[in-house]
Amino acid sequence: MPFVHIEWMEGRTLEQKRELTTRITAAVAEIAGIPNDRVHVFIRDMKKDEYAVGGELLIDKK
Amino acid sequence: MPFVHIEWMEGRTLEQKRELTTRITAAVAEIAGIPNDRVHVFIRDMKKDEYAVGGELLIDKK
Amino acid sequence: MPFVHIEWMEGRTLEQKRELTTRITAAVAEIAGIPNDRVHVFIRDMKKDEYAVGGELLIDKK
Amino acid sequence: MPFVHIEWMEGRTLEQKRELTTRITAAVAEIAGIPNDRVHVFIRDMKKDEYAVGGELLIDKK
Amino acid sequence: MPFVHIEWMEGRTLEQKRELTTRITAAVAEIAGIPNDRVHVFIRDMKKDEYAVGGELLIDKK
Amino acid sequence: MPFVHIEWMEGRTLEQKRELTTRITAAVAEIAGIPNDRVHVFIRDMKKDEYAVGGELLIDKK
Repeated sequence: MPFVHIEWMEGRTLEQKRELTTRITAAVAEIAGIPNDRVHVFIRDMKKDEYAVGGELLIDKK
Repeated sequence: MPFVHIEWMEGRTLEQKRELTTRITAAVAEIAGIPNDRVHVFIRDMKKDEYAVGGELLIDKK
Repeated sequence: MPFVHIEWMEGRTLEQKRELTTRITAAVAEIAGIPNDRVHVFIRDMKKDEYAVGGELLIDKK
Repeated sequence: MPFVHIEWMEGRTLEQKRELTTRITAAVAEIAGIPNDRVHVFIRDMKKDEYAVGGELLIDKK
Repeated sequence: MPFVHIEWMEGRTLEQKRELTTRITAAVAEIAGIPNDRVHVFIRDMKKDEYAVGGELLIDKK
Repeated sequence: MPFVHIEWMEGRTLEQKRELTTRITAAVAEIAGIPNDRVHVFIRDMKKDEYAVGGELLIDKK
């Protein structure tokens, strides 16, 4: 513990995922006062037909 | 806010997802008394080997 | 199946939860072409110090 | 109800998923004192670039 | 990894939670072929106004 | 979008939650290349009888 689940739009690079993991782990570990190896990060790449805001799927947004 | 995560069986059409998003957004916005654009909807299409009920995976159900 | 998890701000009434459940169940059942009793709805009332947007907790928003 | 969501690394066989479902359903049903058919199990196979511990994605671990 | 999230109705005892944790950890560890200390279990006690099936909140069921 | 759900042990202060929200929002926004106000953060404070690792609830750990 702690556990961090991130949902964001697909299309980001592996390098972006590496940087995201490093920075989030550091922030959570520092603030919670625990070692890095206790922080678990989960990334879910969402497709444009899996997410909607304002009643419209992202796949349909102009 | 609010956020609505839906898990259902894969195989529905994009049109069904559109209708689902529109109706859920309208219901949540109306009941919560907020504008549509504050309602986020997430759809997860589940495969038949990812879900079980009664101890049996859907892929094994006759 | 299907399963609908809703996260919204605490403070809504039981009556609002009843209406939310009824309308969401009807929409999902109709669109997915399944009976109502196969639709499960989960509601999470979030506190203002449990949610942030734009880097600011709701509890701190003017 | 109850509902059990499992996140584990991809690569397990269908047979392992069957066994996992059977044993978890039996344990939950017995302990909660309810019939098996009220227990729902969800399995999410995670890819190695979707999960990190200690600030390092699994895909980068030696 | 793996991670197991359980949602069930509130009212179970601490002893039931202990037994649930022990049996689920053993099953997942054995089937996944990993040591127990890599299995994380999360339990969410749901209130009767937080869950509905068939369009009816549990709090309203006779 | 993006959405970040954090589960950590209860007991942290409001100030820690503020700092966590600020740093995570900044990291995600910068890496994803989007404005801060598109990043949503959710914090769940877990009780010691709601989480177990290695088959033992945190409440029972010495």
